[in-house]
Order: sequence, then C-alpha cells, then structure tokens
Amino acid sequence: MRTHYCGELRGDHSGQTVTLFGWIDRRRDHGGVIFLDLRDRNGIVQIVSDPERTPETYSLAEDIRNEYVIKVQGRVSPRPEDSLNPNLPTGEVEIYADQLELLNSVQKQMPFQVAAADTESVKEELRLKYRYLDLRRDRMQKNMLLRHQIIKTLRRFLEDQQQFIEIETPILTRSTPEGARDYLVPSRANPGEWFALPQSPQLFKQMLMVSGFDRYYQIARCFRDEDLRADRQPEFTQLDMEMSFMSQDEIIALNEQMMRHLFKTVKGVDLPETFPQITYANAMDRYGTDRPDTRFGLELVDVSDLLHDSGFKVFSGAIKQGGTVKVLPVPNGNDAISNVRIKPGKSGDLFREAAEGGAKGLAYIRVREDGGIDSIGAIKDNLSPKRTAELLERTGAKPGHLLLFGAGPTEIVNASLARLRLAIGQEMGLIDPDQINLLWVTDFPMFEWNADEKRLEAIHHPFTAPLPEDQEDLKTARAQAYDLVYNGLELGGGSLRIYQADLQEKVFEAIGLSDEEAQDKFGFLLEAFKYGTPPHGGIAFGIDRLVMLLAGEQSIRDAIAFPKTQQARCLLTQAPSTVDSKQLQELYIASTYEADNESTK
Amino acid sequence: MRTHYCGELRGDHSGQTVTLFGWIDRRRDHGGVIFLDLRDRNGIVQIVSDPERTPETYSLAEDIRNEYVIKVQGRVSPRPEDSLNPNLPTGEVEIYADQLELLNSVQKQMPFQVAAADTESVKEELRLKYRYLDLRRDRMQKNMLLRHQIIKTLRRFLEDQQQFIEIETPILTRSTPEGARDYLVPSRANPGEWFALPQSPQLFKQMLMVSGFDRYYQIARCFRDEDLRADRQPEFTQLDMEMSFMSQDEIIALNEQMMRHLFKTVKGVDLPETFPQITYANAMDRYGTDRPDTRFGLELVDVSDLLHDSGFKVFSGAIKQGGTVKVLPVPNGNDAISNVRIKPGKSGDLFREAAEGGAKGLAYIRVREDGGIDSIGAIKDNLSPKRTAELLERTGAKPGHLLLFGAGPTEIVNASLARLRLAIGQEMGLIDPDQINLLWVTDFPMFEWNADEKRLEAIHHPFTAPLPEDQEDLKTARAQAYDLVYNGLELGGGSLRIYQADLQEKVFEAIGLSDEEAQDKFGFLLEAFKYGTPPHGGIAFGIDRLVMLLAGEQSIRDAIAFPKTQQARCLLTQAPSTVDSKQLQELYIASTYEADNESTK
Repeated sequence: MRTHYCGELRGDHSGQTVTLFGWIDRRRDHGGVIFLDLRDRNGIVQIVSDPERTPETYSLAEDIRNEYVIKVQGRVSPRPEDSLNPNLPTGEVEIYADQLELLNSVQKQMPFQVAAADTESVKEELRLKYRYLDLRRDRMQKNMLLRHQIIKTLRRFLEDQQQFIEIETPILTRSTPEGARDYLVPSRANPGEWFALPQSPQLFKQMLMVSGFDRYYQIARCFRDEDLRADRQPEFTQLDMEMSFMSQDEIIALNEQMMRHLFKTVKGVDLPETFPQITYANAMDRYGTDRPDTRFGLELVDVSDLLHDSGFKVFSGAIKQGGTVKVLPVPNGNDAISNVRIKPGKSGDLFREAAEGGAKGLAYIRVREDGGIDSIGAIKDNLSPKRTAELLERTGAKPGHLLLFGAGPTEIVNASLARLRLAIGQEMGLIDPDQINLLWVTDFPMFEWNADEKRLEAIHHPFTAPLPEDQEDLKTARAQAYDLVYNGLELGGGSLRIYQADLQEKVFEAIGLSDEEAQDKFGFLLEAFKYGTPPHGGIAFGIDRLVMLLAGEQSIRDAIAFPKTQQARCLLTQAPSTVDSKQLQELYIASTYEADNESTK
Repeated sequence: MRTHYCGELRGDHSGQTVTLFGWIDRRRDHGGVIFLDLRDRNGIVQIVSDPERTPETYSLAEDIRNEYVIKVQGRVSPRPEDSLNPNLPTGEVEIYADQLELLNSVQKQMPFQVAAADTESVKEELRLKYRYLDLRRDRMQKNMLLRHQIIKTLRRFLEDQQQFIEIETPILTRSTPEGARDYLVPSRANPGEWFALPQSPQLFKQMLMVSGFDRYYQIARCFRDEDLRADRQPEFTQLDMEMSFMSQDEIIALNEQMMRHLFKTVKGVDLPETFPQITYANAMDRYGTDRPDTRFGLELVDVSDLLHDSGFKVFSGAIKQGGTVKVLPVPNGNDAISNVRIKPGKSGDLFREAAEGGAKGLAYIRVREDGGIDSIGAIKDNLSPKRTAELLERTGAKPGHLLLFGAGPTEIVNASLARLRLAIGQEMGLIDPDQINLLWVTDFPMFEWNADEKRLEAIHHPFTAPLPEDQEDLKTARAQAYDLVYNGLELGGGSLRIYQADLQEKVFEAIGLSDEEAQDKFGFLLEAFKYGTPPHGGIAFGIDRLVMLLAGEQSIRDAIAFPKTQQARCLLTQAPSTVDSKQLQELYIASTYEADNESTK
C-alpha cells in the first residue's frame, strides 16, 4: 500500500522507506545512473537506480519509458548539494529504488507527450479525443482539483455557516420550454409522451420552499439545447440556491459573504465587504451593457439632447426615430487610434467591432492638442462653436481625446459602443488583469420584446417578482432581480419570486400564455400558491464559468472533465451515436432524418 | 430577519425578543387566549395572543388558520407550571406575539392535514400529487434532513479522511446497453444520432483512473429504463467511487471504515471493525441467495448425495437431471407449521412462497417428539432407517423439527428455499429488527447464461476482472467482485477492473461481442489501456436505499424528494407529457405510437 504521495516528500523524510505509485513523467539515463521523475496527482519526485546502490532494480529501470505505471519502494535520501532542485517542492530529496514493479507499460506511440503538453500547444481535437491523457497534464490536474475545492468550499459555507440543506431534484422532468430548447427523452412506459431534462431546478426549488425547507441548495446539472457558443455546453453545472423569508438585500448580503469566503479560501484574495450595485438602466446608460467590466473607465455619454437638431442627419435622424446618440470618449485616442481603423476596410478593426454590435458606421471627433477638433466635414460643419463646447464639456474631452459616436436604435448603439469600449480598454492597457471587480446589476426589466414570436418574454423567467411599486403596469415593470457580474462576465443571477397565484397568473398573461396553457404547464405551481406559500427568492451561479475564471482559463472546456465540442459531441466516447433500431422500436419513435438530408443539418 | 428557528427556543431564552417565521401547525382558541403552534423545518413552538398581553395582534390571531404563513415578533416567556409540555423540546416556553404579520394564507381546502398526516394514513397518490404539502410533514422533513446528513457525512469522510476528489461526469453520453435499457436523448445538432443517460459513470471513472486522479468519488445520478419494481426508480442516486493501486482487501477495508463512520455519525450505531465475508458459492449453498439476511439461522442443507438413489423420483430425478435436493430445517416447525400451509390450496401460504421461487411442490418431513418421522408415504416408504438417521444428523434435526425440501434445478431450489427461509424467519420472530448485519459477498461468477439471447452475460459488468487463478477459462471464472449486503438487501457492489487491453478483449469475446462491436462501443477504453493504465477498482452504493433503510422506511419513494410512481410518472408535474410537434420536428423524430395502439402498452 502507498505510504506517501510523490509530491509530499521533503528533506525531513530522509532515511524513511516509502512506497510510491505513479507514472514516469521523464526518464534520464546519465551513463550508469537512471533518474526517473515519478508523477502522481500530488506532484513529482526523483527516483534513482544504479547498479551499485540499487542492483535489484537497475535492469528494470533501464527498460522503463515515459508514462509507464510503476510501484516503487525505496529510501528517501537528501540529494547531493550540486543536484538540489529549488524549482521542485521535492527537490531536496531523491528515492533509491530498492524495489521496482512495472504495473503497466505504454504499448503505442503517445498521441502527445504529457510532460511537455503544458508548454507545447496540442490541438484541442486531439486533447478531447485522448482526454484521459490530457487530464494527466499538470494544468488539467490543477483545474480539476480547483473545481473540487471550489465546490467543496461553497458546500461547506452553505451547510456549516448558513444552515442550507442539499436536496436533489429530478433530471427526468416535464418539458416547459420558455427561453431555450429542452432536451427530450421519450418515455417507454408512456409511449407518445416525453420527459425533458431540466434547464434549471427552478420549479422544484420553489416547491421546496412551499414545503418549508427554507434554505435549499444543490450543485445541479442543467441542460439547454441551444446552438453552442464558445463558452456554452449542452449540460452545465450550477450552484442552485433558494431561500424563504429573506429580502433582496439579505440574499445579496449572504451571497457576498459566500463569495468573499470562496475567494479567500481558494485564491487568498480579499474581496470587499459589500459589492457595488448598479441598476440595469444605469448600466445600459453608462456601459451599454448589463454586464459591465468596471475595472476601467471609458464610460459612455448620452449626447442625444445636444444633437437632436443637428444638421448631420445620421445624428438627428436616429433621435427622431426614437434612438440615441452616445459617445465613447477615449483619452489619448487621437494619437493612439488612426482613421483607417475607424473606417470600413481591411484595416478597420474598430469599425468591424462596432459593426458586430449592429452599427452601420462609426463617426468620430478628434480633439487636437490645441483644443480644436477634427472630423469629417458633415459633422464639423454642422456643429456650432457653442454646441462643440457643450459636447466637449459633456464628454469630458480634453486635448488628445478621441470621441467615437454611436447613433441609431438604442440597443445597437449600446451593443456597438460596449464592444468598442472593451476592445479599446484592452488595447490601451486600461484593464488590470489581476483586479477582480464583482458588481450587482439590479432592477432588470421584467420583460423584453421577442420580435420573432411577437410577444413579451421574461428576461429572467416568468416566476420573477416585479418591484412592488411597478405592479400596476406589468408590461413596463422592473423585476426584483439581481445578477452578479465578474469583470464583465455574468457569474450568476437570481430574483425574488412571485408567491401569489393571482400575480403569477397576470405574469403568465403578460407573456401571452393562455389560461389553458398556464394550467397545463404550471397548474401545480398555481395550485401550490393556494396552500400557504412563503415569500422566497433565490439565485444560481454557473460553476463551470466560475472554475474557468478562477483557474485563469480562456475556455470553459478546460474547467470540465469531459466536455462536449461546439458541435455538441464527445470526442472521447463518440457520443451522440446511432442506436439499434430495436431500441427505437421499444420507444415507439422513429428518426425522420434522412442521410441525404445533409443540407438541412 | 429571523433570529431563531422555532425548535431552538428553551427556558434560557426567556426574556429575549425573537423574530420567527413559519406555518401554523395547529391553532387553539381557549376562550379569549389564542395558542398558535408555529412550525418551521426545525421544530414547533407555542405562540400566545390575548387581548390583555398582546392587544396589537389579537384580532389578527383570531383570523389565522392552520398552514397560514406568518412572521412573529415576541417575547420568550416561561410557561406556567401547569402547562409545561415535556413532549415538546420547546415545551418550557411560549412566545407572546407582540407583532404578527400574515405572509400568506390558505385559500382552498387542504387535500390533507399536514399536522395529522403522520398518524392518519393518506393515499400515496394524493401525497405525490401534493408533494409540496407531503414534504411539510414531520416524517418527510426528517427523511430529507437525514438524506442530506448521510450524503454530507459520506462526502466529508472521503474528502477529509481519504483524499478522494469529486469529479462530475457527463449525463449526456453514449448508449452502450449492457444489462438494462438506456434512456435515449435525440441530438438536434446531429440528427439521427442519440445521447443516452448513463446507467452509471463506469467508463468515465475508469478514464479518470487512467488520468491519474487516483481516488475519485461522485454522488452520481444514474438512469435505467427498466420495468419498475416497488423499490426501483427510473433515476436514482449512487455514491460512486473508484481507486487506483489498491487491492480488494484494501478497498473493502476502506469501505468498512466509511460505513462504520456513517452509522456512528447518523445513527449512533457501532458497527464491527470488519464485516464478515462469504463467497457467492457459499452464500448460495447456505442461504440460496447472494444477498443473505444473516440476522438469523435457518441455513439450507444440501442432501443430494443422500437422496440420489431414493426411490422417491422427485428427489432422485432432480439429481439425475443435474439438479439438487436441499433442506430448510425449521426448529419447532412441527408444531408451528400445519400441513395445509405447505400444500397447494387457499391456506397454502408457504406453498405459494415456494411456488413464487419456481418450485412445483414442497415436500416435508416432520420429526415427532419421540424422534420418529411423519411425511407422505412416498417419501417415508423410500427412506431406510439408516438413511433417515443420516438425514436427521446432516440437517441437525431434533424432535419438533420440520424439514422442508426443495428438489429440482438448483436455481429454483435455491430461490424457493431462500424465500421460505425469510418468510419463516420473520413469522417465527427469529429476526431482531434492531440488529444490523453488514456482510460482504465475494467471488461472484464472471458470467451467467442469458437463455433469451443465448449468450453469456456479465453478472456485474464486462469491465470486472477475473480472479487471477481463473483466467485460463474465462467462461467459468470467478470475478474479483464484492457486494455489500445489509440485512438481506444489496447496498452496493464493486470490483477490481480489467486494465489490460488483451484481457478486456477476451472478456468482450466471451459475452459474444464481435471485434467490430467492441471497437465501435468501447474502442476508447481498449485504446486507453495502451497508454499506461493503472490497476484500479471501485464500488457504488445506492443512496436512495441507504436512506430508506436508515430512515426505517419501507418505500424508496419516501427517501426521495420528488419520486416517480411505479408507472414512471411524476404526479406533481405530470411528467412525462406530450410536447409541441415543433419540438419533435426540430429533432427530426416522430412518434410511431398510435393512440389506438393501447393494447401494446
């Protein structure tokens, strides 16, 4: 049996006999002395074999190669002065291999070298196909251990300090598509009927509040059949919480305490006592997004009132049609950012950034060192000196500033300038990568307009409670909802929930659900509200993204042991796959997809 | 904000002002004084309101009814001597309700009374439909809290004392039906292809061992689309573990330590240092089952060698055809068990028990007080005095014994006598309900014959390693497998795994998998074995059953917050359900089930 993990051994183990198991990270043959770097999940230690000191094992040590699995029994010895390795935690010692047992060998060319993979770049496709080798890498081992530590820390905070209890909710549940698509599971016992995999445990956790469980949490697997983006997975893990009898402020305070505890425990970082809060309206106004990265300034400035009567029709026309003109003022932008980057064309990277947000053009004003302005004639000619002065004052522009303009429908102006703000902030080195800004965004609108389906759609979900003062006109109401944003990425979100049947019915009505549909899909919820439902609210955090951020990774796939590709495939097991026709027959289902249907894929 | 849970309050809180939230468990109006039993997840405390001491709240208290949700602020006061309630942990105190706020009321007739439901019997269908009310009951609250405590205790043992790390494995994975049916999930991104929900994380946890994670665990959701029995659910939770570099003995010892820790922590029960072990062959021999309840004797005795030449053809014929004759000796059975119970007919309960196991008849011998025997003529007449003496000696029969015989194919003899043994043990009061016997069953056969498919089938799964000494003839080999049995119920099972590609290929061959099928389904496993796979093994425990047993419940549904019925339905949400045809179209699937197809259901 193992006596130690490799990485534990230190100088004061010298003289002890230890038994280790692990993989050969590297093998070196120094003419008559063989050095084996033995690796396990805990670290690396150097094993030594030579004909003189370890005659029993030398011949086997000669045969061993990288990634072989061995068992070693040996004496811990201090290394000679000249071969100490200060870069290795175990660098003071080495192990004389008195007994060596080969447990398994490598019988094929490795698709990539485990020890070198952290420094060399290996194609992700290869990494995912051979995930069991990819996970041997130091970096992936650390990511998985960090994930474990994050989940463990969250669990224990909630259990030990906050009296939460963990309750499991079903994975085979009912389809209630609202927002994303459901994954469906045909029922054999009830042919023609389907289970759905949960997009979240939302309704079950609300039922648990009705049951009196009071403080619930779960590390919950959730599923969304969406077209995948870089940081989305068909299945994902969330920390799911729900609480009764707490106000929004109390829920926020509890979550701040949890995040402080987490960051302190796993990263040694001290977060502030409370996190700043910004309303949705204010965030859209100042940053053009409800997920602002507040590590740097470059705030947007609304100048619609100054330009509504401009002779430049791009500005005045936008405002006339109910849109906006906003400015992104860039200090020192006059020197740093050339005109070609702002205009369409090959070098127009900033133009393209704005276009990604929907903008058709990107107007600018440059403030020269002498205080005069440069722009295209159509803008300059239509600005009186007084208007120019007002514009410069409003936007805080000083000599050297570049002002970038968005004009048009408000969503497009916001989306475009928000993208530009991020790109320029990054380029100009305004973002401290070590800084961590956590920010609450509150007072979201209840609904947004879904132009495709021509109906209002819940921004969070239709169980979110409106602000009490907004209940009279639900369509324009703000919600008692709160998102937590981490350096510009949404980490989690939650809300107080509706707990009265009549208000819930009104919200279903607002999103265009008929009474019959509401009863069919959510009848049990409406019914539950009639038997003494407590006021309650909750929140959920994306664990995969949290791990990715705390691990300093760029891809969510590096935070998950066995992720899917962006094509929703597992390259290791080759899932999804075709199945036996007998399986489909038993389920009373058939595929309507024809192989020659390729174009519709 | 809440200052205390209801159940926490004691005499030494007297004089404090507290804020409580909860439900009215019972309301009593004692002519001018209203008593409200306020309940939260932690317990019950008595609230008092009367016009004199709490004039502000009396009129609201008059309106409040059972299961209303309220907030109370009040003073903790010692109860008068004559109204102390020693049956209630908070029975020394009561709360004068200075402020009372009605948070939500009950607007409909309750389908059953929460406070009374533990003593009155409520139909399970009603309980499951109104699960949110059912879960308010003291009994279900305790079950859910116990479940949480069991999982918490297991996690912390593994993490803190054994260096296990928790890693999540996918729910959307590949169909590899072996044993039970898979639940399938159509892939929209890859039409014509299917994910399957995992029957266990088996292959992923083995991959994690290849990755070097060494000690893995997960509280894992698993899925089996089987025809449901009383204690089965379509989805269930298991404690899933896998370890590298450990022998079977070491794995068993670790799990014994875990179980001792669990039973001590949650039940205060001291289990023995080590649990007894019995081989599969020995268990079948002595108990007729691989899940023996060893809390009582009544062991079976094989008497085939004594009766192979009996003139009674039922005995000798069974043996000639390769079967067995075994005896269940029942001390005092001569008096306790009448002939009509052993024979076919209305009163033949023991006959029916044997018939359930497949037996066609139930032969017996009675040993009179004077040592003589009674039986049917055909048996008695064919037994010489010498044979009779041998039979009595072999079976340990004394005056007053009843010997029940099973004769026929060995599986049927075992199944029948095992059922009889349990029924009689129970009836005769031989089982101490407070006793807890944990028992390891080892050395299972690798395979059993599947007569339907005319092929060998893995008893555990095809990744189980054979005993080294049995590798030459795999078809009859025993496995390095071990099940943990709790008073006759299987609590968990595991095995050492194969970790060499060639041996794994031989096992696939033995179960009739062609090379091509093996490559298609398990190619990645065979490939992984070529890059340095460590020796490894694992185990999994059924959490739902563990909770059921430790809660003293009879039904697994009482151990699960939101269970399915035996028809695989959720009565709360009405899942499964029909779905929009648009959903099916997007998935390229169609139901082939016609409503008039009812007969095939």
